[in-house]
Amino acid sequence: MLKDNWKELSLKARKIYEDSLHETLKLFPFDEETLKEFQKLPSAIGTSVTDFGAPASSPIEEYKRVLPNKTAEITETDPYDLVQLIKKGKYSCMEVLNAYFHAAIIASKLTNCVYEFLPQESLKVAKYLDDNFDELKDKLPLFGLPFSIKEMIPFVNRSVTHGSLCYLDRVVDYNADIVEILLKSGANAFVRTTNPQSLMMLECESYTHGRTVNPFNSTLTCGGSSGGEGALNGIGGSAIGLGSDIGGSIRCPSAFNGIYGLRLTVGRLPTGDYMSCQMGSEAILSVTGPLTRSLDLLELFTKTIIDSKPWTIDPTLASIEWKPEPKDKEFKIGILSHDGVVAPHPPVKRALNLVKEKLMELDNVEVFEFTPYDHARAQKIITSLYFEDGGADTKNTLLDTGEPMCEQTKWALGNENVKPLTFPEQWKLNIEKQKYRKEYLKYWNQFEADAIIAPVFPGPAAKHRTAKYWGYTSQWNLLDYPVLVFPVTKVDLDLDHPDSEYKPLNDIDEFTYKQYDSAKSFENAPVCLGAVGLRNTEEKLITIGKILRDIN
Amino acid sequence: MLKDNWKELSLKARKIYEDSLHETLKLFPFDEETLKEFQKLPSAIGTSVTDFGAPASSPIEEYKRVLPNKTAEITETDPYDLVQLIKKGKYSCMEVLNAYFHAAIIASKLTNCVYEFLPQESLKVAKYLDDNFDELKDKLPLFGLPFSIKEMIPFVNRSVTHGSLCYLDRVVDYNADIVEILLKSGANAFVRTTNPQSLMMLECESYTHGRTVNPFNSTLTCGGSSGGEGALNGIGGSAIGLGSDIGGSIRCPSAFNGIYGLRLTVGRLPTGDYMSCQMGSEAILSVTGPLTRSLDLLELFTKTIIDSKPWTIDPTLASIEWKPEPKDKEFKIGILSHDGVVAPHPPVKRALNLVKEKLMELDNVEVFEFTPYDHARAQKIITSLYFEDGGADTKNTLLDTGEPMCEQTKWALGNENVKPLTFPEQWKLNIEKQKYRKEYLKYWNQFEADAIIAPVFPGPAAKHRTAKYWGYTSQWNLLDYPVLVFPVTKVDLDLDHPDSEYKPLNDIDEFTYKQYDSAKSFENAPVCLGAVGLRNTEEKLITIGKILRDIN
Repeated sequence: MLKDNWKELSLKARKIYEDSLHETLKLFPFDEETLKEFQKLPSAIGTSVTDFGAPASSPIEEYKRVLPNKTAEITETDPYDLVQLIKKGKYSCMEVLNAYFHAAIIASKLTNCVYEFLPQESLKVAKYLDDNFDELKDKLPLFGLPFSIKEMIPFVNRSVTHGSLCYLDRVVDYNADIVEILLKSGANAFVRTTNPQSLMMLECESYTHGRTVNPFNSTLTCGGSSGGEGALNGIGGSAIGLGSDIGGSIRCPSAFNGIYGLRLTVGRLPTGDYMSCQMGSEAILSVTGPLTRSLDLLELFTKTIIDSKPWTIDPTLASIEWKPEPKDKEFKIGILSHDGVVAPHPPVKRALNLVKEKLMELDNVEVFEFTPYDHARAQKIITSLYFEDGGADTKNTLLDTGEPMCEQTKWALGNENVKPLTFPEQWKLNIEKQKYRKEYLKYWNQFEADAIIAPVFPGPAAKHRTAKYWGYTSQWNLLDYPVLVFPVTKVDLDLDHPDSEYKPLNDIDEFTYKQYDSAKSFENAPVCLGAVGLRNTEEKLITIGKILRDIN
Repeated sequence: MLKDNWKELSLKARKIYEDSLHETLKLFPFDEETLKEFQKLPSAIGTSVTDFGAPASSPIEEYKRVLPNKTAEITETDPYDLVQLIKKGKYSCMEVLNAYFHAAIIASKLTNCVYEFLPQESLKVAKYLDDNFDELKDKLPLFGLPFSIKEMIPFVNRSVTHGSLCYLDRVVDYNADIVEILLKSGANAFVRTTNPQSLMMLECESYTHGRTVNPFNSTLTCGGSSGGEGALNGIGGSAIGLGSDIGGSIRCPSAFNGIYGLRLTVGRLPTGDYMSCQMGSEAILSVTGPLTRSLDLLELFTKTIIDSKPWTIDPTLASIEWKPEPKDKEFKIGILSHDGVVAPHPPVKRALNLVKEKLMELDNVEVFEFTPYDHARAQKIITSLYFEDGGADTKNTLLDTGEPMCEQTKWALGNENVKPLTFPEQWKLNIEKQKYRKEYLKYWNQFEADAIIAPVFPGPAAKHRTAKYWGYTSQWNLLDYPVLVFPVTKVDLDLDHPDSEYKPLNDIDEFTYKQYDSAKSFENAPVCLGAVGLRNTEEKLITIGKILRDIN
């Protein structure tokens, strides 16, 4: 752990970003006109990490305006189709990489979503793939696919900070297993994305990068902790990205940016070598998963990793093969309209109704109202188990450098259930956790439900520093149920009026309720929902996602 | 937790046993001649739990002498074949239950292996099955099979002490999930077997029952902690039994009593509702599994439980179906002759050579010498993680009642690595555990081995209070690898001379070496070995077990 003053370290972090940008622009230069436009763009990257810049109110509009047509032709193609086009020889891997670098560079300035670019590494891979096109195109399922990775995922010769400046010199000498598998499958890691201080927030602020904003509305957060992934994929600057999730960190950024995201069951994808605070803590396990605009790519990507039999290299995994779920069967799907703790905002309520109505039109789907089973109890258990040491390890990362604690970190550590545990206390909480899991399974089995459609967050993307209620995501972490986030609609200024009659149930409900002061505040924000299933039913959730996509 | 004086409680525990015996003899009476012989038998059950009685030197000889022919016809039939015979109508469930009660009553007096009998419950089940023979015999795979269960496994309306008197009033109102599954599959729980104080010993001594001895040689231990299961199944008084294993507790009792035993991978069979000290501790997980004379029954029994899809009721399980492994394929099998810490005794060495030679005769098996990968490190990690509280929870069970600590409990808690951990210390150990697991998997993969044949313990059954080295079993708990224990030979007075030249490598090696003072001390003791596989390869281990059985 570094002991230098945090301000000096933050300058070093910023230099890592700038050097990598500079190198990328040298190897993958813009044409003159685009460069000029790029230089004029409003920036979410300030002069220092405490300066959040002056982002455009709608970064994605600027992005679409500035993105050259030839680039857009590639990056706006559905990323699944793009892989097929590369394999057919329509685009070379190098062309695709070049396009995605340009898209990511523009996205990065507009939203501050990139931690660093990987120009040399990805150039080498793209060249190798192009040079061996005939031999490899049919062997490698992800041939030429550029993908982004959350900063906390080890990448060889790069430092891994997970948002804490004291780790800026922790340069790893290996790739995470999943990164290796993806590279061997023909995918190409081209950029590392931003994540927040300590990773324990549903937003994306840190002293290693500043603040990542939502590409649809910069007064809103992009979500977190896989915030950079959410913003970059949401705007269209990556084909697919890898995030991680211990309380909502894949799902919130997916939902806030209008894309697909998959939180898999523990034990399906290798995560054991990721880095974070409290490393070695096993009471609540983090999982990894993809965020992307393309559901077909999400499936191919996940299937490819599982088809590689990752349990033969990562002993924490279960040897459960990928088994596609047929579309033409009967499904019973529940609707969770309210978790009994915090009421969803009007746009989310509307999205639930939209999906419910769509599902009810289908002959092979039975829809029912799913009543939640004591979700407040789940919150108490999981928040007690997140920080077994009362947060000391997280606090220690700030101690020597003087790095300030972000407001959202304070919020997570300040939860009334966070306190240093003794082992008997932790054992008792583990028993409560197992008991709740068993009761919930029994409860769910009564309905014989294939999936539950539920909010991912009470509202659309939250205003900065207000994403405080985790219950709609951390519920499923406690149960270890997989969730597929899928886009439904966007905030509608005519339809999504605040409910002035609502009487909040409790403090956090009141706080959340008050955030939704007008539809205007959330203008353009995407609205997503989650399909939740029992453990190891990811294949079924994807099929349900496809059914929902295809009724559109 | 009870606070009464331990001596009073031990009398109550003894009364539970005696009442259940009395009731059983009333419902399933011996004929007069057998009763007379039974009454004359030398008893391993003393006048109190601190009196270990005066067992016969070879209990199994007495057992075979006294067991009536008609009883033996049933109980000496291979238990797998027996199930088929019941289904064909050759024996009724009641006849079989009656025979097994008689066998178990005799076995119990000779070895002190029964905690209590379940006459009323099992009578009801047998009657029900017989009354519905035509309808159920083909539906229930385990129709009429009597099975025994280790005392720590919850059985409705019975107290669960796991060897600690303070829990004598902890009467549970449910059956463990696995017991329910077995009952629904037609099996019939008829007896609860002894387990030692705190469960953390490879022997079977407690103040709830006294001491269980080895049926082949009563100067030796039956092993532990599933010690009653080992002795009862080894002598032939149960068709199959359920044990549990966190450091060798299924495997040692199997090996010491010359039977098959299977330690499955975590997550294949439901164990979440078993009871023990340190409940809720998750750093090292206990698993359940069968002990039996019949490999075919072991397979049917395990397959039946997994075919019931136990993951639909127990959320700790992985949904991995049972997939039989074909016999007619190529196998690569390693021989682990020495773990690098403690040398096996001469009979175990001879057994390893016997198996090696047999395997080398087979065309479809490639045999190689497997060099262990730093097993000493595994010992250090697992002994540090067994008692996260330094053993306080175990010690607390003795505090109020004044129950003395058994010598073997003292040994387990006195290990130099046992100390109260802080969370950062435990996290560090978890990281070491995961690192070791990953390294070991990589190491194993180099050999592309299907299985490793290894000792289960340095020697055959240990002399009482000397089973101190756990390394040959706890190694695989740390790695979470499944192990099938299988019988190989028995101690040979002519062949198994002590190695007078051996120079011990360390203190525990010296202690262990000195125990093997003569073959005579271990006369009649069975010698078993274990087939170890990668996680979730139980089916393969069973096939290898069958190959080995069938070359005999």
